[in-house]
Amino acid sequence: LLGSINHLFLFTFTLLFMQTSSSSGGKILVFPLDGSHWVNMKVLIEELHSRGHQITVLRPSDSWYVEETSPFYTSITLSCPGKFEANFEKYLSRMLEIRLEKKPVSLWSKLWTHIQLERALIEQFSQFHREVGEVIIHMFEDANLMQSLHAAKYDLVLTDPGVGGGALLARKLQVPLVFNVRWTIQGEAHFLIAPSPLSYIPFTATELTDKMTFTQRVKNVLAYFFGRYTLTYITEPVYKPIVKRYFGPDVDYSTVFLDADIWLMRNDFIFEFPRPTMPNIVYMGGFQCKPSKALPADLEEFVQSSGDHGVVIMTLGTLVRNLPEEVSEEIAAAFAQLPQKVIWRYVGQRPANLGSNTLLVNWLPQNDLLGHPKTRAFVTHGGTNGVQEAIHHGVPVVGLPLFYDQADNLSRVRTKGAAVIVDIGMLDRHVFKEALMTVLYNSTYRGSMQMLSKLHKDQPMKPLNQAMFWLEYVIRHKGARHLQTQSHKMSWFVYHSVDVIAALSAAVLLSVFICISVMRLLYQKIFTGKKVKHE
Amino acid sequence: LLGSINHLFLFTFTLLFMQTSSSSGGKILVFPLDGSHWVNMKVLIEELHSRGHQITVLRPSDSWYVEETSPFYTSITLSCPGKFEANFEKYLSRMLEIRLEKKPVSLWSKLWTHIQLERALIEQFSQFHREVGEVIIHMFEDANLMQSLHAAKYDLVLTDPGVGGGALLARKLQVPLVFNVRWTIQGEAHFLIAPSPLSYIPFTATELTDKMTFTQRVKNVLAYFFGRYTLTYITEPVYKPIVKRYFGPDVDYSTVFLDADIWLMRNDFIFEFPRPTMPNIVYMGGFQCKPSKALPADLEEFVQSSGDHGVVIMTLGTLVRNLPEEVSEEIAAAFAQLPQKVIWRYVGQRPANLGSNTLLVNWLPQNDLLGHPKTRAFVTHGGTNGVQEAIHHGVPVVGLPLFYDQADNLSRVRTKGAAVIVDIGMLDRHVFKEALMTVLYNSTYRGSMQMLSKLHKDQPMKPLNQAMFWLEYVIRHKGARHLQTQSHKMSWFVYHSVDVIAALSAAVLLSVFICISVMRLLYQKIFTGKKVKHE
Repeated sequence: LLGSINHLFLFTFTLLFMQTSSSSGGKILVFPLDGSHWVNMKVLIEELHSRGHQITVLRPSDSWYVEETSPFYTSITLSCPGKFEANFEKYLSRMLEIRLEKKPVSLWSKLWTHIQLERALIEQFSQFHREVGEVIIHMFEDANLMQSLHAAKYDLVLTDPGVGGGALLARKLQVPLVFNVRWTIQGEAHFLIAPSPLSYIPFTATELTDKMTFTQRVKNVLAYFFGRYTLTYITEPVYKPIVKRYFGPDVDYSTVFLDADIWLMRNDFIFEFPRPTMPNIVYMGGFQCKPSKALPADLEEFVQSSGDHGVVIMTLGTLVRNLPEEVSEEIAAAFAQLPQKVIWRYVGQRPANLGSNTLLVNWLPQNDLLGHPKTRAFVTHGGTNGVQEAIHHGVPVVGLPLFYDQADNLSRVRTKGAAVIVDIGMLDRHVFKEALMTVLYNSTYRGSMQMLSKLHKDQPMKPLNQAMFWLEYVIRHKGARHLQTQSHKMSWFVYHSVDVIAALSAAVLLSVFICISVMRLLYQKIFTGKKVKHE
Repeated sequence: LLGSINHLFLFTFTLLFMQTSSSSGGKILVFPLDGSHWVNMKVLIEELHSRGHQITVLRPSDSWYVEETSPFYTSITLSCPGKFEANFEKYLSRMLEIRLEKKPVSLWSKLWTHIQLERALIEQFSQFHREVGEVIIHMFEDANLMQSLHAAKYDLVLTDPGVGGGALLARKLQVPLVFNVRWTIQGEAHFLIAPSPLSYIPFTATELTDKMTFTQRVKNVLAYFFGRYTLTYITEPVYKPIVKRYFGPDVDYSTVFLDADIWLMRNDFIFEFPRPTMPNIVYMGGFQCKPSKALPADLEEFVQSSGDHGVVIMTLGTLVRNLPEEVSEEIAAAFAQLPQKVIWRYVGQRPANLGSNTLLVNWLPQNDLLGHPKTRAFVTHGGTNGVQEAIHHGVPVVGLPLFYDQADNLSRVRTKGAAVIVDIGMLDRHVFKEALMTVLYNSTYRGSMQMLSKLHKDQPMKPLNQAMFWLEYVIRHKGARHLQTQSHKMSWFVYHSVDVIAALSAAVLLSVFICISVMRLLYQKIFTGKKVKHE
């Protein structure tokens, strides 16, 4: 009897456990964007894994950042190379070449530089999306793979819509879709999903703010149309044929991105200018931020040796390994003149101008350094991750924007009085030192950043927990369609009520015409015989 | 010595306590909207009080619902009557008279009823805002009162912007402002603060949804312009002179409402159609909902006596005490035919048709009854509070909308498949019974409402806690200006980039003109002597 009760107990326990595991743990398929975007996707994946979800990651065979084996996920390697790294390296050197070219300072040369940079960027993006397109086609053509993905019955596709693979895959598998997003293939993500009046919403890469003069508003409108045209020019040739081939001719390729149940936005209104938003946008800006840990003993010793002057941290992020020698030498010379100690993430030839106060490192614990009480300033290229971490820890910034959204990120922090931006094309030891001194000794910079930090830490829920809640919400409810607006299903002229306005205008005109006709007729009837003739 | 240590200890304790109370407890000034709006304002006040805040409430001398003494707040009674109750009673009887008038069923008679109802509503609103205007002037003219309000240094003004008093007062005192809001004096609150494309956002009182045909979109646009015109016609004569007198001629009265740091919206996207929103809008729909408690013994006994059939609850809310006799008799007759037990909040002559299954009560514990497992349906007028509680507890609804936003509220629940609406002008025992039977026996109604209930209970944070967080956030940070968009500070033509579009169009036209002129000149030069002459 006892054995049988025991057996029953075990059986009940197993049932209960199955219940729990099936209700709490989901099966999540991730189609990531490679490079630095993978860094923050991994934060979500690790947290999802720790909460008991099973994660599968799709990666091209020569993936740049996405490791094949990981304790946090299972990977599926597509037998198709992404070639993203080579493509990026080529762009980076071309971009630096253009920006460092010595030119007379005139409006025309500035414009010419700008055009060349745009051309390099367009070329890189075109190449990039062509490669992505190949990866997607490769995936869809692999019948075995597609069958196994169907059979796996995922609860959710999680993707970065900077590439189209994840959204297309979710539609193919008919699985709920969540974005880890700041950019879509069409530019800044809000422009695709939320009303974005150009009168106070600066378009991507304009470095404008939410307070614009008339001239700036003209610039913003032109930038918007040019930007939209360019992005369509780049992405349409890649995605349109794919969508036509796998979803039929009636599906507009850009609407596939509006399938997402939830948009986890790597952004918030401590950082971003306030603007209209949507019910299915969840802001998780700085979700990767965490309290700083103790530094390794040698680094801590170096930091402590700075005394009251404190330290300056410099890193240009994961993508840029090194700058041209002439730039590095000027930076080193400026650093050498500071009373602060400097920790510089630097790979390559040791600069001749390097001061004894500067420590070169291959890698640095960025979060722990930013959270260190002795850290006084952060020199950064302005990637979203770094800027958000600087905000979180309240460290003012000297920005050295290189490409993509970096200038925009930095200009937001500058507008809030917490950053100075240096143009790498104009950088010499004097300019760079002045920027450093401003941020170090004008206390308003630190004050502004501390204020942003205070706001960033004062939220109803930690951004990462917020993200987890909504990911699991989509799993629990098999989507979140009730948060998607109808606007996505309308043509632009219906959305803007153009047809209604036209109909009402016609009705008014018709009424006026009838009134006039009737009055004229009455006039003729009353003064009958007395036919009026106009000359 | 011991005495002196004890003294020191007490002193330290007092200091600590003062510290805590000044940092956590704020001073909050409430300018409420009387009537049913006070019911939900009181929920916020009680919660704020329990969290250690000091609350002061302003009330007219003959306030309808706002009690002079309360354990939760201090009141300041203005020596000016609001006369809101008399005004409302007059409107209610006039409105019922119009709706119950027997008329031939034709498009024209419907239109005529509609016009009469609009006229009654406009008259009531005009009267109401005139009274409110008198209360506001009375307050501003009372120099002693204003001085003491200034001296009190409130951290926050909390108000319902259905009247203008609170927003005007906050501006006068230069104190942060939080709205407990669903309507402003200009109509549904989103229309004032967020982009609201009329192609999928139904205007107030149209009973339209977010999916509209062409004709419905025409109706919506017309309703919008008519509604905006009417509300301006009602509120401008009251508020414009007040704003001119107390804030100078340069202040536009409607912009005072855009001062609010946070809009606590009595709404959410479980109930509302998804639409654009703003960073400073916090959704707290159903914040008043709480788990149900046990019923009083006699009521529980009555409920249990219903067996498997369960019970039906009916109440028309706090404002409507009674319906005309002929309507009550029909309702009683329909109820008498049900196998369910019925609990009906009813004051007045006992209907002759009353069945033995129906219990009349003066008051009912609505939340506890809605949360009771035996409750099968809820007959309601469709006030926001009641509808939100029905959603929270998952009880399907038979709606009997009477006035204001009630038809809109009910139509949202009907769209989601969880309500049947009965027109009180068409109500007889057959119509009403059919509505009841549909909701009771077509299981999709209960299923839909249970689904809404599940979603309502599955939020990152309880709506009331969310509201408290943001109220205290505004106290902590002395406002939340960083969440207000620039759009509020723009004229409509700048907001819509009309000037930019005009300038760009002019530039294009000019370029075309210059091109044509140059080409013409060249043509003439080339074919010199051969002057071309057009006829």
